[in-house]
Amino acid sequence: MSESSRTPVLLIVDMINPLDFPGGASMRPLAIEAAKRLAKLKKRFRNSGRPVVYVNDNFMDWKADFKEIVAVVGHDTPGAPLAELLAPEHDDYFVLKPKHSGFYETPLPTLLEKLQAGRLVVTGVATDGCVLATATDAHIREFDVHVPRDCVAAISTERTERALALMKASMHIDVRTSRYVDP
Amino acid sequence: MSESSRTPVLLIVDMINPLDFPGGASMRPLAIEAAKRLAKLKKRFRNSGRPVVYVNDNFMDWKADFKEIVAVVGHDTPGAPLAELLAPEHDDYFVLKPKHSGFYETPLPTLLEKLQAGRLVVTGVATDGCVLATATDAHIREFDVHVPRDCVAAISTERTERALALMKASMHIDVRTSRYVDP
Amino acid sequence: MSESSRTPVLLIVDMINPLDFPGGASMRPLAIEAAKRLAKLKKRFRNSGRPVVYVNDNFMDWKADFKEIVAVVGHDTPGAPLAELLAPEHDDYFVLKPKHSGFYETPLPTLLEKLQAGRLVVTGVATDGCVLATATDAHIREFDVHVPRDCVAAISTERTERALALMKASMHIDVRTSRYVDP
Amino acid sequence: MSESSRTPVLLIVDMINPLDFPGGASMRPLAIEAAKRLAKLKKRFRNSGRPVVYVNDNFMDWKADFKEIVAVVGHDTPGAPLAELLAPEHDDYFVLKPKHSGFYETPLPTLLEKLQAGRLVVTGVATDGCVLATATDAHIREFDVHVPRDCVAAISTERTERALALMKASMHIDVRTSRYVDP
Repeated sequence: MSESSRTPVLLIVDMINPLDFPGGASMRPLAIEAAKRLAKLKKRFRNSGRPVVYVNDNFMDWKADFKEIVAVVGHDTPGAPLAELLAPEHDDYFVLKPKHSGFYETPLPTLLEKLQAGRLVVTGVATDGCVLATATDAHIREFDVHVPRDCVAAISTERTERALALMKASMHIDVRTSRYVDP
Repeated sequence: MSESSRTPVLLIVDMINPLDFPGGASMRPLAIEAAKRLAKLKKRFRNSGRPVVYVNDNFMDWKADFKEIVAVVGHDTPGAPLAELLAPEHDDYFVLKPKHSGFYETPLPTLLEKLQAGRLVVTGVATDGCVLATATDAHIREFDVHVPRDCVAAISTERTERALALMKASMHIDVRTSRYVDP
Repeated sequence: MSESSRTPVLLIVDMINPLDFPGGASMRPLAIEAAKRLAKLKKRFRNSGRPVVYVNDNFMDWKADFKEIVAVVGHDTPGAPLAELLAPEHDDYFVLKPKHSGFYETPLPTLLEKLQAGRLVVTGVATDGCVLATATDAHIREFDVHVPRDCVAAISTERTERALALMKASMHIDVRTSRYVDP
Repeated sequence: MSESSRTPVLLIVDMINPLDFPGGASMRPLAIEAAKRLAKLKKRFRNSGRPVVYVNDNFMDWKADFKEIVAVVGHDTPGAPLAELLAPEHDDYFVLKPKHSGFYETPLPTLLEKLQAGRLVVTGVATDGCVLATATDAHIREFDVHVPRDCVAAISTERTERALALMKASMHIDVRTSRYVDP
């Protein structure tokens, strides 16, 4: 699955997010900054006809659709600006996940197989939480992984830097900015 | 997980279904009959405050929410009567599955853990396809499994009988009618 | 993964087996008959340089290696003739499984990826138990599946016939004899 | 599964290890130091009758048993001292893993269920690789996790410190020394 000719896929992790957890207030400005860059990267993927997949927490609400979650979060929560900057479009893909990793108890593996995905660009929040867990599981499954450092955020810059340093050193994950992503 | 004191959960497999596949026409009257019985069983679960979970195919449409699938199927497809008889209610649970088994690449395991499920009542279509695959995986995970014979259907009665006989003989699954289900 | 050019792999399910469970005595002569045919099929795979994988129960003994299990079973249990007819060779692959399906909580998916497996020939016992569960999971993962009817056994011929009829009708699995297997 | 009354289980990750990879020479003295502490912790688990599970890489050798791997590694590889300090005993459990996480394609989940595990003490190498991946997956599955900082190693102390800091901050994992582990 590591052939560079296979499709690059953009994964957007947990950016549809009320940010109402402890630390959410600290994460908010950093996540908004990342969302601005990520919105541009997403546009580049869409312009190239490359797949964009929202890989989002279900927030343990087992009765809500993704689009309901988007509507709720976008309406008057601290995370509303993220949902606005990264509003899912009708032909974006999405996967709801119950836990940290986008690969755990979700159809993401089958979706990526159908998309003939080879390279995964993992973005979103938190760099040291769901992004790390998803990138690790992608690495385990032998995908080429790129975590562009300007398209992720955590509750502090220090946490993001620590997680990126670990991903680079321990898994040889590319952590250069989105400028180096080639959709 | 086999203690009888744990919660019984009703799983409704693939009853939100356009029935537009080869064999769908043959399955239709049998599925409608099963849906009528299942609607009554579902009411008994709801009246007892027991969880009802729709475990439904996503039909390889990776951009559709469950409720969109319900709306599309319910509008002018051969399967519309099923969607009407078994219309999901706002407090029913649902899980979208990409393949045959409800346990494959879905959050069903975590949902059942949260619900403290012990006994699983597996219903829907097809008895010899997704119902069998889901019941097998439930058995593997050591749940008590009941597949009430009047709440399942396939493209022929013979296929249903064969699959039920196999489940009973090989996995000791209870296949008595819904009269013997105790929500 | 369904391209016919990909490697065919022979899976031998639970043939290293003490046959000391209820029904084991009934299964024994049928399993020995299947083992004789399977030994020939295995030889054809080996002569063609095609992989052979033992996919075997660990019998809930979490401290035993596969080769220890082979030694124990081969020494003075009712299943000893099977272990003799199908003695694993030093360059056969093996995978221990904790439950019915060879795909559940085992490294079989990664091994099959490394072997570039396309077609899976599933054999062994019981046709209506671990063979069916493994063949179903292979089908779900979009492998071409062949369950040669002369290389499987259950505690009765009726059970084998029922399981084969189901696999053929419901999953379009090839159930012709081993003569039709092309390693 | 988070009740403190449930069984604590010691997981020993990848300590049966030839240390013949790039960086292995740097890891060696640090791993030997950790192995000495870990040997004492293991003895405390065994004296309390608590389970010890080796969760070890199969090094992509699909034809080798765990005990064969132990024998090969223990004989004249740079990792021999680890295998000697932590020689598996006949009643220790073991699980072979094909990838980084001990939960990926292994029977560890079922084994932990049988052991009624509640608290997992994750030890071994590398702190920023297989230990982190295993601890993350344990956290995702809602186990209480303790990674005693004196019983893990990586190719540098800096890498271990970074991974421990991340586990503590991001997953609230206990990273105090083995003195604080209560078998």
